[in-house]
Amino acid sequence: MEFKVNSKDLEKLLTKIIPAVPTRTPMPILENFLFEIKDGLLTIYATDLEISLKSSLNIVAEENIKVIVPAKLLYDIVRSLSETTIHFNVSESGKIELKTDFGEYNLSYLSSDEYPDIPSFPNEDSKDDLVEISISGLELKSAFEKCAFAMGKEELRPAMMGTLFEFTEEGLRFVATDGHRLVNLLKKNIQTDIINNYIVPEKAISVLLKVLDEKEAKLYLSKTHVSFRLNDIELITRLIGQKYPDYRSVIPLENEFQMKIDSKELHNAIKRMMLFSTTNTRRVKFAITENNLEISAEDLDMGASGKEHLKCEYSDAPLEIGFNSAYVNDVLSHLSSEKKIIFRLHSPTKAVILHPAETKENEELLMLIMPVRLNA
Amino acid sequence: MEFKVNSKDLEKLLTKIIPAVPTRTPMPILENFLFEIKDGLLTIYATDLEISLKSSLNIVAEENIKVIVPAKLLYDIVRSLSETTIHFNVSESGKIELKTDFGEYNLSYLSSDEYPDIPSFPNEDSKDDLVEISISGLELKSAFEKCAFAMGKEELRPAMMGTLFEFTEEGLRFVATDGHRLVNLLKKNIQTDIINNYIVPEKAISVLLKVLDEKEAKLYLSKTHVSFRLNDIELITRLIGQKYPDYRSVIPLENEFQMKIDSKELHNAIKRMMLFSTTNTRRVKFAITENNLEISAEDLDMGASGKEHLKCEYSDAPLEIGFNSAYVNDVLSHLSSEKKIIFRLHSPTKAVILHPAETKENEELLMLIMPVRLNA
Repeated sequence: MEFKVNSKDLEKLLTKIIPAVPTRTPMPILENFLFEIKDGLLTIYATDLEISLKSSLNIVAEENIKVIVPAKLLYDIVRSLSETTIHFNVSESGKIELKTDFGEYNLSYLSSDEYPDIPSFPNEDSKDDLVEISISGLELKSAFEKCAFAMGKEELRPAMMGTLFEFTEEGLRFVATDGHRLVNLLKKNIQTDIINNYIVPEKAISVLLKVLDEKEAKLYLSKTHVSFRLNDIELITRLIGQKYPDYRSVIPLENEFQMKIDSKELHNAIKRMMLFSTTNTRRVKFAITENNLEISAEDLDMGASGKEHLKCEYSDAPLEIGFNSAYVNDVLSHLSSEKKIIFRLHSPTKAVILHPAETKENEELLMLIMPVRLNA
Repeated sequence: MEFKVNSKDLEKLLTKIIPAVPTRTPMPILENFLFEIKDGLLTIYATDLEISLKSSLNIVAEENIKVIVPAKLLYDIVRSLSETTIHFNVSESGKIELKTDFGEYNLSYLSSDEYPDIPSFPNEDSKDDLVEISISGLELKSAFEKCAFAMGKEELRPAMMGTLFEFTEEGLRFVATDGHRLVNLLKKNIQTDIINNYIVPEKAISVLLKVLDEKEAKLYLSKTHVSFRLNDIELITRLIGQKYPDYRSVIPLENEFQMKIDSKELHNAIKRMMLFSTTNTRRVKFAITENNLEISAEDLDMGASGKEHLKCEYSDAPLEIGFNSAYVNDVLSHLSSEKKIIFRLHSPTKAVILHPAETKENEELLMLIMPVRLNA
């Protein structure tokens, strides 16, 4: 059977789908795209068994087919072509020929029989508990940008390897933590009539960060899966079926000491301290006195050390506290759009809260870092 | 002792010297800068024992010192600072303190006694056979840009691990080859009264590519070393003390078939063929007939293949010849400023010559690729 497609249209499509193709997998069949033509609609799927992506393009074709083709090779060929028409010829002998005005490229295809089922969603099973909501793509993207870095990477604590979506009466709350730092972001303008929790795995979040745009995103949530339908692409992921840790219990309510400081100045200083905080704990020390923050770090192996003084607004009791400099750096990187930030502290051993000095109308953002011991 | 220096001036200086600091070395002492202050001149040296770099800066200092300091740490600190004055304080206890308006950073220094001698050049030993010439920095840079990729990497053939400087009556000829491809570039406008050959090692070439600019470069050549004095930096390298292979004997004189082709079109097509030429030989086949070039490649493991037709100017006997596609890609990358190029061929087993279709007034450029067998 034959069909033709513009090379740049196909490239755009494949660019969106390829993030779901695993690069190293014990199941080589997942390194293929599923290519389906049905009634003039070309739909391309990819999955790593956790997430699946799908997108479609109208074409002119007389027949229907469903085959799998090597994803990376097809993608590399298509994007190496300048804009042209590609004539596809799928022969019965297991070959796909791509023909342009000056070249022809042959790939082998396989039958789609062995390719895993792509969940079609919502389906009959999920009908009863299905929840459907719409969120602005940019709102969702900006939430993920603030949370994603804090998700856990340890397979022993699977619930933390995702971002919590907590639908509440106040709005939609996003929470991510790896036990050392935590992000808690409430988007008050995302109002739904749902009261429920879902944990979306890290892989889905990182792919969505690449494909979300200003278009509305439609979410279909069941007990086990969520589907994100964007303008021209659908991502389905299984949810993490674990209980999310009780993050509320780690957020201190009575951190009565408050330091207000310039976000960028502190961030630059922390980056310099990272040159010296090279041991396992990567420790940087904060010594806070009236309107003055002294940060310091020491590299005992190199016999090197650094110390800086920064202006801040602080009028509480002097306090010394240690942090992992990489974690402070991460948190500040994700607060870089804020001019001033506030640290709320209590003691050298209690979790520290950071938040923007200026609260936004529609959101509440709170980040938390666990301190490290100063005399370890 | 104390001195002060502008952070951006020092950063500029260190940026030029750090390429000589080895990143992995069995001699950790080479991971330091040699810091010398003598009569108000701060001179910084680095060496990996093959090449050494040196550059200087005038400062205000009352005393002279010579110490070694951790290169990467000092460089990272200095470039992380915004523009400011750094006050250095070198104490007798082995510490260097860098102080700015808001921070202080301490490094350990070591005595310079154990640091290897930096060759001072020209010196008494080299006086008799010393040769001194001036070359435009940009001419030298453009010559290295065309040659560098073809130098050999095999330690078993040390002479090829550098670029040949051949001073002849016609001008200065640069030659680089790894036995599979060769570049031969004659710069007719670099006229000297020397007739001699020198082999400059790869490391020196790659560092010079970073530091050469429009300023004149002064070369001092002895039998064993060469010094490149640029505007504000000096690079000294040992020469490769081997006989360069007789490159003339591998350049065929009677390649009577000639194909003229668009350089960029061919390059783009070769890049696509590289997607298919994935075996050890990375073979791409050229089938040349009247005014037509068909290039093709096959990936037997994937069951994939590609073929393209390109227009060319060719009126000799049809010829089929194979190449390593990566080598053709390399050569074409370094001819990318040429609109049309000419292939001179003879048979499927004989070396092929490539050169620009338009010859420049002041230079003769010739590249050579060895073919690979088509039926291997």
